[in-house]
Amino acid sequence: MKIIYYRIGDNVYVQPISRKDSMLAITNCKMEKEVQKILAQFKGKQKSLNYYLAGFVDGEGSFSVAIIKTDMQKFGWAINPCFQVYQHEKHREILEVFKFVFQTGTIYRKSGIHPVLNYSINSMRGITEKVIPFFDKYPLIVKGETYQKFREIVFAMQRKEHSTIGGFKRLVDIAYAMNQQGKGRRRTREEIFSTLPELSTRLPDGQASKH
Amino acid sequence: MKIIYYRIGDNVYVQPISRKDSMLAITNCKMEKEVQKILAQFKGKQKSLNYYLAGFVDGEGSFSVAIIKTDMQKFGWAINPCFQVYQHEKHREILEVFKFVFQTGTIYRKSGIHPVLNYSINSMRGITEKVIPFFDKYPLIVKGETYQKFREIVFAMQRKEHSTIGGFKRLVDIAYAMNQQGKGRRRTREEIFSTLPELSTRLPDGQASKH
Repeated sequence: MKIIYYRIGDNVYVQPISRKDSMLAITNCKMEKEVQKILAQFKGKQKSLNYYLAGFVDGEGSFSVAIIKTDMQKFGWAINPCFQVYQHEKHREILEVFKFVFQTGTIYRKSGIHPVLNYSINSMRGITEKVIPFFDKYPLIVKGETYQKFREIVFAMQRKEHSTIGGFKRLVDIAYAMNQQGKGRRRTREEIFSTLPELSTRLPDGQASKH
Repeated sequence: MKIIYYRIGDNVYVQPISRKDSMLAITNCKMEKEVQKILAQFKGKQKSLNYYLAGFVDGEGSFSVAIIKTDMQKFGWAINPCFQVYQHEKHREILEVFKFVFQTGTIYRKSGIHPVLNYSINSMRGITEKVIPFFDKYPLIVKGETYQKFREIVFAMQRKEHSTIGGFKRLVDIAYAMNQQGKGRRRTREEIFSTLPELSTRLPDGQASKH
């Protein structure tokens, strides 16, 4: 157990703190200083920092839309857009800068043997209020097309397009056209489509038909 | 064989061109248009583009100093600094933007199974006149320390430090401290050092001594 002293106005307070908490406080404090140093480099140049970050995302970031099996959603699938930036844990500071600029998101260690950290924004609010306004303003070159598809899916979800079967299928199609045409996905587009009710349309003679 | 027509003033000229050359001309023309489109996005915002490129390099670039066996150099080794940016061949346009901005360097396909392109500047002139002035102005966050070591080696080479054995060893030491402490290098620092003459210093009694 350690003791920390802190001052509020003229009064000095004493508080015991566990070793673990004190180590954590030291680590956080060091990281805070690293981040402050970076932000100081860009002081008065917020736009320049933003262009830098866009460039960094074009290299180390990703825009993805996962289609996840769930009983909680209509049609048995959830559409989950997610913005991520990766970095070796040695350089956590760059992810902290992203977190500072976007004022949302989470940093966590990726599963697997490599010590890679992941900065992630997957809430619809974070994506619509922070991610999209940012990348609409600070353009991507390499990931520009992928970002446009991501953006289209997010806006369509806001309009509740995915609550109709036709809309849902359209969004799955766009998602599967992102990031190397769905390469690396666990399920094929056909596996998802095979679980869905077919689109029903009305024939000219007034009879419903499945196609 | 194809025919191309071109106009100079009021005169129209006709010239035969091979199929291969005409295909190449079409590819180059498409790429040129892609690059022009990107540059147009940043029109009047050269600095913003530069910050973007710095961010991109912090993700997908590298500053390295190879130590290469050669009979052409004093001590039997050459010190070769090199700046590189990698990208999947699908997005060659970003490397062309780098080439346009730096006005030097080469784009080539990396050996190996993956279709990855490499934009590379390895001439001392390109490095001292283009790379270093650029990254002194547009800061790197993740690769900042590696860049500072790269810069130190380049400037020391300009001062011919590597032509003395002490200077040469110092630069090898700095090079081996870059990029994960020489991890991934073909030779250990000790293997290089074992081929070098030892530093000779003068003892107080006037006799030369090896140590």
